[in-house]
Amino acid sequence: MSVALGDGVTLILGGARSGKSALAERLAEASGLAPVYLATGRAFDAEMEARIGEHRERRGKGWRTVEVPLDLVAAIGREAEPEHVVLVDCLTLWLTNLMMEGRPVAAECQALADHLAARLPGPVILVSNEVGLGIVPENAMARDFRDHAGRLHQAVAAVAAKVIFVAAGLPMKLKG
Amino acid sequence: MSVALGDGVTLILGGARSGKSALAERLAEASGLAPVYLATGRAFDAEMEARIGEHRERRGKGWRTVEVPLDLVAAIGREAEPEHVVLVDCLTLWLTNLMMEGRPVAAECQALADHLAARLPGPVILVSNEVGLGIVPENAMARDFRDHAGRLHQAVAAVAAKVIFVAAGLPMKLKG
Amino acid sequence: MSVALGDGVTLILGGARSGKSALAERLAEASGLAPVYLATGRAFDAEMEARIGEHRERRGKGWRTVEVPLDLVAAIGREAEPEHVVLVDCLTLWLTNLMMEGRPVAAECQALADHLAARLPGPVILVSNEVGLGIVPENAMARDFRDHAGRLHQAVAAVAAKVIFVAAGLPMKLKG
Repeated sequence: MSVALGDGVTLILGGARSGKSALAERLAEASGLAPVYLATGRAFDAEMEARIGEHRERRGKGWRTVEVPLDLVAAIGREAEPEHVVLVDCLTLWLTNLMMEGRPVAAECQALADHLAARLPGPVILVSNEVGLGIVPENAMARDFRDHAGRLHQAVAAVAAKVIFVAAGLPMKLKG
Repeated sequence: MSVALGDGVTLILGGARSGKSALAERLAEASGLAPVYLATGRAFDAEMEARIGEHRERRGKGWRTVEVPLDLVAAIGREAEPEHVVLVDCLTLWLTNLMMEGRPVAAECQALADHLAARLPGPVILVSNEVGLGIVPENAMARDFRDHAGRLHQAVAAVAAKVIFVAAGLPMKLKG
Repeated sequence: MSVALGDGVTLILGGARSGKSALAERLAEASGLAPVYLATGRAFDAEMEARIGEHRERRGKGWRTVEVPLDLVAAIGREAEPEHVVLVDCLTLWLTNLMMEGRPVAAECQALADHLAARLPGPVILVSNEVGLGIVPENAMARDFRDHAGRLHQAVAAVAAKVIFVAAGLPMKLKG
């Protein structure tokens, strides 16, 4: 399947190390627009720091990176422009941050979906981890997280022009 | 992808909060038949009670609900009729109940698949959680559960007219 | 979807008890070539022994089985021939063995992908578990394993002629 970036919102879902970020970056770079990376991950330990460094290296120099652990809607509002392609990587880390800070997760997710549903001035790609296809976690917070993630993916997919599922680096079109 | 309910058996697989029950309900309601909900979940704690209440509210008044924690084959036998559409939600909770009660799980799953393979007098939709795409669980009972679920999905899919995988609320056709 | 074995490398991904090995065996048997089974699993406990026995019984007498817990590249080198179809079952158990033996996992995975990328004299089918679609594991070794598996799947998929995802015994074509 060949994939091109459309106007509006593109959601890229996939598992751990499925190649979803790399696909998102290729789509952004192929658009010819100025790529802006909204990084939701925080380097709270060495493992996370290594992942962030690896992603940053792969993206190369053309990208502008903005760290957005929490206020994602405002950042998309600032950065989405006709000459920009905005890449949000990733929604699941943003959710983690919201939960750790005690933010009203459901309301913030709804606000994001509402913002994305309005006509944006430039293309936005959102990357997220599908986390709901394993055994029910024993940990209540993990179950909560997985519920929020599932609902968020449904809400974003409903307003997205394009939804792609990635496995083994290969895209499957779910929508658009 | 647009999806319509066919005759015979439809299996809807998906992750947690993937929108699989909502899709199943829409298909049932669009059929114009009288919808019967076979609920396998038991409200053994507040979390489960909240989920059941949420599903019940979404379904609205047109539905007749029958609680079927264990004797699913008999219930499908009673309820499947030309004027009914039967929705079983969900197989994974039924499996959980069988295991907790010490029932002969493999034999009961085979009996369900055999019953579904026979020509039923009306359409039956079965919803289930795909649980086999995460890391191997450390807990032996969870590994067992996941093996039973995988085998049950294969057996039901083999006799189903239609199999749909749902991610982020979006259907992918696996069969039919 | 109907599936046939192509020349070159076929990767079959799926969850636990998804029917991926059975599909691989059917493809191999339908090829008319002499089937060689490269078994990476080691019977280190009764549960594993039962799984191995079950697979062996299903395959029947036409198969030659070679146990290859670690040196997979050499075994593929020896067994791939125009009159053979080689089935590797499965990559995730091979990864587990590499990790347990302290082998340089990333280098060995790269060597496998490089070997598969070279023109092989006969068809090779590789089966593997998708493990990255659940909640992030709490255990660091499980996270490591899942990262290695994801990267290995991407590398093998990139050089494969055909990639198939199996759910509930049903194939979805990802490539080829």
